[in-house]
Amino acid sequence: MDTMQFGSDWYDENLMARNETLFTTANGYLGFRGDFEEKEGSYHKGTYINGFFDSEPIVYGETAFGYAKNHETILNLPDPKRIELTVGKRPFSLKRGTLNSFSRNLDFHTGVLSRFVDWTSEDGNRVVLCSRRLVSFIDKNCAVIEYSVTAKGNPLHICLRSSIEVTSDNRSANEDPRVGSKFSSRPLLILETGIEENQLSFIAKTRNSNLSLRGAAFHVSSTIPARITKFPSDLAIEYCFDLEEGETVTLTKYIAYCTEGDDERFLAHKFASKGFPLIAREQKEYLDSFWNLARIRIEGDDLSEQALQLNLFHLLQSCGKEGKTSMAAKGLTGEGYEGHYFWDTESYVLPIFTYLKPELAEQLLKYRYSILPQSRKRAETMNLKGALFPWRTISGNECSAYFPAGTAQYHIDADILFAAQKCFNASGKEIPPWIVEMAIESARMWASLGSYVASKGNRFCINEVTGPDEYTACVDNNAYTNLMARENLLFCCEVVKKYQDQGKQLPLELRTGELHQWQGIAEAMYIPFDKELGIYPQDDSFLFKADWPFFDTPREKYPLLLHYHPLVIYRHRVLKQPDLVLAQFLLSGLFTKAEKIRNFAFYEPYTTGDSSLSHCIQSIMASESFQSVKAWWYFKKTVRMDIDDIHGNSADGIHTASMAGSWMALVYGFAGFRDWKGTFSFNPQLPDSWKSVSFCLSLRSSVVKIHFTKEEVTYSLVAGKALSLIHRNESFVLEEGENRCFSLVPALEGVLFDLDGVIVDTAKLHYLAWKSVSDRYGLAFDTEVNKKLLGVSRDTSLAIILEHNKVVWDEEKKQQALEQKNEAYVASLDILSPKDVFPKMRELLQNLQHAGIYTALVSASKNAKAVCAKLQILDLFDAFADVRKVQKSKPEPDLFLVAAEQIGVWYSNCIGIEDAKAGIQAIKKAGMKAVGIGTAEELPEADYVLVDTTKLTVELLQGILNT
Amino acid sequence: MDTMQFGSDWYDENLMARNETLFTTANGYLGFRGDFEEKEGSYHKGTYINGFFDSEPIVYGETAFGYAKNHETILNLPDPKRIELTVGKRPFSLKRGTLNSFSRNLDFHTGVLSRFVDWTSEDGNRVVLCSRRLVSFIDKNCAVIEYSVTAKGNPLHICLRSSIEVTSDNRSANEDPRVGSKFSSRPLLILETGIEENQLSFIAKTRNSNLSLRGAAFHVSSTIPARITKFPSDLAIEYCFDLEEGETVTLTKYIAYCTEGDDERFLAHKFASKGFPLIAREQKEYLDSFWNLARIRIEGDDLSEQALQLNLFHLLQSCGKEGKTSMAAKGLTGEGYEGHYFWDTESYVLPIFTYLKPELAEQLLKYRYSILPQSRKRAETMNLKGALFPWRTISGNECSAYFPAGTAQYHIDADILFAAQKCFNASGKEIPPWIVEMAIESARMWASLGSYVASKGNRFCINEVTGPDEYTACVDNNAYTNLMARENLLFCCEVVKKYQDQGKQLPLELRTGELHQWQGIAEAMYIPFDKELGIYPQDDSFLFKADWPFFDTPREKYPLLLHYHPLVIYRHRVLKQPDLVLAQFLLSGLFTKAEKIRNFAFYEPYTTGDSSLSHCIQSIMASESFQSVKAWWYFKKTVRMDIDDIHGNSADGIHTASMAGSWMALVYGFAGFRDWKGTFSFNPQLPDSWKSVSFCLSLRSSVVKIHFTKEEVTYSLVAGKALSLIHRNESFVLEEGENRCFSLVPALEGVLFDLDGVIVDTAKLHYLAWKSVSDRYGLAFDTEVNKKLLGVSRDTSLAIILEHNKVVWDEEKKQQALEQKNEAYVASLDILSPKDVFPKMRELLQNLQHAGIYTALVSASKNAKAVCAKLQILDLFDAFADVRKVQKSKPEPDLFLVAAEQIGVWYSNCIGIEDAKAGIQAIKKAGMKAVGIGTAEELPEADYVLVDTTKLTVELLQGILNT
Repeated sequence: MDTMQFGSDWYDENLMARNETLFTTANGYLGFRGDFEEKEGSYHKGTYINGFFDSEPIVYGETAFGYAKNHETILNLPDPKRIELTVGKRPFSLKRGTLNSFSRNLDFHTGVLSRFVDWTSEDGNRVVLCSRRLVSFIDKNCAVIEYSVTAKGNPLHICLRSSIEVTSDNRSANEDPRVGSKFSSRPLLILETGIEENQLSFIAKTRNSNLSLRGAAFHVSSTIPARITKFPSDLAIEYCFDLEEGETVTLTKYIAYCTEGDDERFLAHKFASKGFPLIAREQKEYLDSFWNLARIRIEGDDLSEQALQLNLFHLLQSCGKEGKTSMAAKGLTGEGYEGHYFWDTESYVLPIFTYLKPELAEQLLKYRYSILPQSRKRAETMNLKGALFPWRTISGNECSAYFPAGTAQYHIDADILFAAQKCFNASGKEIPPWIVEMAIESARMWASLGSYVASKGNRFCINEVTGPDEYTACVDNNAYTNLMARENLLFCCEVVKKYQDQGKQLPLELRTGELHQWQGIAEAMYIPFDKELGIYPQDDSFLFKADWPFFDTPREKYPLLLHYHPLVIYRHRVLKQPDLVLAQFLLSGLFTKAEKIRNFAFYEPYTTGDSSLSHCIQSIMASESFQSVKAWWYFKKTVRMDIDDIHGNSADGIHTASMAGSWMALVYGFAGFRDWKGTFSFNPQLPDSWKSVSFCLSLRSSVVKIHFTKEEVTYSLVAGKALSLIHRNESFVLEEGENRCFSLVPALEGVLFDLDGVIVDTAKLHYLAWKSVSDRYGLAFDTEVNKKLLGVSRDTSLAIILEHNKVVWDEEKKQQALEQKNEAYVASLDILSPKDVFPKMRELLQNLQHAGIYTALVSASKNAKAVCAKLQILDLFDAFADVRKVQKSKPEPDLFLVAAEQIGVWYSNCIGIEDAKAGIQAIKKAGMKAVGIGTAEELPEADYVLVDTTKLTVELLQGILNT
Repeated sequence: MDTMQFGSDWYDENLMARNETLFTTANGYLGFRGDFEEKEGSYHKGTYINGFFDSEPIVYGETAFGYAKNHETILNLPDPKRIELTVGKRPFSLKRGTLNSFSRNLDFHTGVLSRFVDWTSEDGNRVVLCSRRLVSFIDKNCAVIEYSVTAKGNPLHICLRSSIEVTSDNRSANEDPRVGSKFSSRPLLILETGIEENQLSFIAKTRNSNLSLRGAAFHVSSTIPARITKFPSDLAIEYCFDLEEGETVTLTKYIAYCTEGDDERFLAHKFASKGFPLIAREQKEYLDSFWNLARIRIEGDDLSEQALQLNLFHLLQSCGKEGKTSMAAKGLTGEGYEGHYFWDTESYVLPIFTYLKPELAEQLLKYRYSILPQSRKRAETMNLKGALFPWRTISGNECSAYFPAGTAQYHIDADILFAAQKCFNASGKEIPPWIVEMAIESARMWASLGSYVASKGNRFCINEVTGPDEYTACVDNNAYTNLMARENLLFCCEVVKKYQDQGKQLPLELRTGELHQWQGIAEAMYIPFDKELGIYPQDDSFLFKADWPFFDTPREKYPLLLHYHPLVIYRHRVLKQPDLVLAQFLLSGLFTKAEKIRNFAFYEPYTTGDSSLSHCIQSIMASESFQSVKAWWYFKKTVRMDIDDIHGNSADGIHTASMAGSWMALVYGFAGFRDWKGTFSFNPQLPDSWKSVSFCLSLRSSVVKIHFTKEEVTYSLVAGKALSLIHRNESFVLEEGENRCFSLVPALEGVLFDLDGVIVDTAKLHYLAWKSVSDRYGLAFDTEVNKKLLGVSRDTSLAIILEHNKVVWDEEKKQQALEQKNEAYVASLDILSPKDVFPKMRELLQNLQHAGIYTALVSASKNAKAVCAKLQILDLFDAFADVRKVQKSKPEPDLFLVAAEQIGVWYSNCIGIEDAKAGIQAIKKAGMKAVGIGTAEELPEADYVLVDTTKLTVELLQGILNT
């Protein structure tokens, strides 16, 4: 199939609403929903200009100081698309007569939406109707509709009545808080309308926001003589023709919509003089240039390839391009979320343009700079210093009428600055003063928002905030917020220092000590962390909430926000989207692999994905966690979000963030791309059902093409200068014009050994040591209980024994017993000697050494090295993973991951050998093949099981890795 | 002055608005604001019927599932008070002509509001105008206005035009969320008006709530012939008279307002037949009966006495009396808070009626029972079981448009049940089935709201709630809420078991195990407590917030809620009212005296008192904390809240809860009354400037009169059967007709001794022990540091040494050092002998014993008894306060309070002797006189200082106590 277009070959009334959204043509300024030219058969006809809104005071049930003052709503403008066709004496209608054939198509290469209808009226008149529509990327004010009718079978009298429908209106609010406007009176006032020869025009003004709009449509018809009638009161003009059989008439409508004082009639006429063919050619050239970089190819999955292309096309169509507007959450495809700009732009959309069209990324940031004055005022109202960007807005004023999921989301400041940091890092350009100005004002905001709290060890705490996950609100120390605020402060300090070092003028004067204050705050920032679980709690209260009753919640009660009062949601442990997981993705360099795996696993069961921003991040972090099946599942939910109407509300507009997320899931997820402080790395992992993927990125003004299959990846420098890249854990420089190829086929490069039960049997010694301690304290302990201790740490072992005995000890007593156990165990080590090494294990270790395969010892025991010394095998290991240096012992993956990193071998090229269930689980979580010593019953998760070590050989291990 | 009336002898336009509120006449059903009969000179003319409202959908800026659906607003009804006077040809007007004299008076004995005006018009016509007004307590539908005019100096033509003003309207909403209505169209529809002979009438209906109102006014004029004119379109009737000089004409207007289908015209006529004198006599009889019990007398403070009487009068006027309505936050005096009922009724007003008019208390509870069906539905919407009472309502439906300070205040359920428990406890009546039904439904609500949380030691936690203090919202484990919820559950269990034991039918069937579940929850209820501070944090996050910047907050920025965004307030440690302190007052039996003192002191600096519910509780707990000056200061703020218009909004109505609070501050505060589970106790402490107080309480159907001066208190059984009471710590039975008198003059009954430095010098031994430990760990320690250790516990001493050395130790190491110090100290005790007792101290102890004065040893040392044994003075002490059994050591008062309780002596009859600053502070906090051994410089807080113990005698101590 041609994945560079989206269309259908049949007419399905049920898909009408969704299709109007998907068939939108727009250029980031002007947007036409994909409704038909005719009145009939529409769900909601829409015409929008980015940032063109009206406002009214927000009515609150109960108001308070500092509440956002006004709604702002993007307006549905007078509809210039309207053309009504009459065939003979009957209006063309899909609901009557016979539909011989029907197709619609949106072409991503040409940017043209076309429709083809072959239809016979009830009274037997057959016509073929062909319409084409584009909204120009070259001239933002320009749109064209070409409407052709061919008489079939008979000569025919047909009429085309073209109008600008000035009574268009926004959809009105209903119970779903995500849709609908709340105007008390018509927001757009039509000041003037006019009909001249072949031309319709109007002048309008918004009631409260005082914006002006001028529109005109100039008509050009085929040379066939027409009878023309004007309808001034309807702002319509009718062209009637007598067609011979087979003859075609074409009416072309050149539309000019202006908001900046241009002469609409002059422009419409100018576009008509230029003509549709030329306009269409320019459009294609613009798109060629875009696709040149943005084109994605997926061998083996046309549907995903098409969906990704559609998503990119819509993002390009939705993006404000002049630094005066941003990207509405629904682009220019509908009125959902009132046409507001959210953090979605910076956190989801900006990365795409950063790597595919950097000049647009910069324009989006410029919009934020343009609303800095309003953001300063907002900070003042909120008793803060610096600037607080609005949570949702068009004009720059805060429009959120529910502050717990609005103004409380202070993280927007950090999101914007993080996107800016990334954008300039990727392009390699110097940070301009206007970005520095935003960084300073944001840093000031954070410094005034939080406080050093004595009862938190004098750490800097940020209380009463809402993170991206809106299923908890107004919490203390949202981890995402604190992490991103810290990043914001550090970025600010860095750029300010750079300016100072270079003797450059700062855009704002700093107060004495301000830089030092920010540095101090960043260093003292409180990040919630739970030692027991080894995870970052979403906020201070998160671990003290009751779990959401997932099992009692039927499918139709999702999304929860539409079926439960906020208080019910807030008091439970349940997420709309996992914001800590998002932070670990964004700030990838600050967390170990083990942390990412553990936190992703911890939050996943609590995550509803009720937000369309959720799945793409889940997909990326599933990839990071070696969970390719899950990564694929989440990708599928995000890539076709709107095509498959997964949230059931695509009728109200596209989900721009989710669309952007699908690209992220591919690039950051499957290709494992990371850009951390200017270091670009990849770790490609192809989904099972795919044959290959290729895409390009613009990095430091160079263009890199990444192409990978299951077996190998090729990095090519398509344009620009040499570039440093990292493949997995291997750095290399890609020279001009060079291709670099790396194998992705697993190859045994590292073997990670457990100690007890794999190399030597110290289990007996441990058993005896625990037995002696248990006896001393009068605790029950036997071989059954002992089984549970295999492979787990000393602390946990004691916890298991105490739980078995149903007793609770204080910390002091526990420490005492742990020391006694260790003393007993260490004393018993004396009886070990080299002959205690298990059969064939010394040979295996030696053979691995000879084969150049690295080895590491991965034991939860703090005495592992002492044991190896006794066994005289110390020198057979390249590394010893130290349990004291990781967050969590087995069954968590930390030790195995660290061991692989210590020997410098990529995780998937390692094999782990374990005799305990917890150890096998740790290996699997670490993304490695696991060999179990024991029985398949005891170790069901192992990839391969041996009863003892006698059959372990290098060749066997190599074989296991490749199956 | 006559404290049973409130009035003024001059006309002050600036006080007009407040006066309209204060001069309200009402009977709990019908209320007339104290506006003049004439149109001129009014701030806002108001006529209200309790519970008569209209509703409209609440408009939200952003709505969500389960939000309260409708506003409900008490309506300002057609105004029947209107009479316009024309003198000669000119309308009577206070703004023109000459005001010869003016007075207004509200009489609490008669319930009559009267006005006297002597006025001369611009054209020299002089009249005396006399009006009297009452709203009948005997017949709720009845009100009467008597309007007399006397011609002075000349014969005169005068006209009285009487009307019912049907265009009356509510005040409209403005930026202050506490006032104003939001109707989009007139809520009251006038269906019919009528004028017959001497009579005006109308029939009206509310637009949405569908309530009907019928009103009539029947006029009776003096026998002087009148010319009568009717004005149907104005619903007015005019009486014109020709008066001789000195002649008086009187027009009496008998008003009937009905909402339950009575015939308004018949009633008005009936009232007229009865006549004003008889109606007024019945009114006085009703009030006589009320004042018989409710009358308060304060010798030495007429203003407070008057204010308290005014407050009680207004509460009686505001109280719904038929079980169908409750008491609006502003009574029937204005439209503030839309006429809604809040927890104020149960938590502030109900105690008053419980002890002064129990049948009304029961009626208020009956109202809650009447809205149980709506409360069950609300619980269901909120995903809860049982019933959740509305935070604010008229009809029973939740009307709070801001859930964080509305529905999140689940504590309303517990407040209602606590009030019910108190009410029936006080009267001694059996708990009726309808209260049991409410108790069960509330218990079910709590059980479904909270959860057992593993990470909180499996305690039952109630998350995401707002306590009474609305300056924090949606927090976890608000201590007030959890304490009161536990009480609710226990009460429910108790009454259910009682019913079951008595074989009585329960009003609802319980599910299997339900009772057991509630009992379990009550036992496992999590109550936040901070060991370090020894206080109950208001909620889980309270101690982790930054302090409000009080020093940067100018006076005009209070109340904070009008000048700061909620997010700003919520993230700081700042209170509107101290809810934990309230809980300690309500649940007085659950806390030690020391806890109450400490928590009151802890919360006081954070409390703004921005709520009118704050000061009275502060006053009570200041009294409890021996802080009589503070108690007085808070009392003054609450008792004249509306008379002095302290919050600047008395124009919008009285503050019923604050009015009730003033009575509470007197009875619970100054008289120290407590009613804990049917035990009635008193601890009178007269404010300095007063001579005596007396008041009555109805307890168990008996009436007790309490009269106290500074010197003594007398308890008299005025009516009813014998009753057990407690004076301070002394129980007694008050027999029929008996008076019991107790002295309040301090008398030395107990002496509390510190050990080190007072009886013996072990300070040196401690010093040496600490020195040896410090040396062992290489810590700096000298005599300067040692000074800081005087009188403080071992743990704190070590903390001081570590802090001095700027080192942090773990718990284990600290324990070790503490044990070592103790071992060293105990070993050194061996050298002590009886001759080490300080000079004269053995004699003093012996003399105290002979004089029958109790003694106790109050030492922070765990070795105190061992020392006494060595000194052979063990048998000279009646008690030893054990530091291990109190929450906090010195300088907290716990040890001294416990010592006094151990020897059974009231705190104020004890003297404490101490040589350390911390010890003196502890004694003072415990409300005792403190004798310091040392210098006045070192011990500035001591009441008396001696350089050593040689001069200490029984007589000296007795003298100190009495100065």
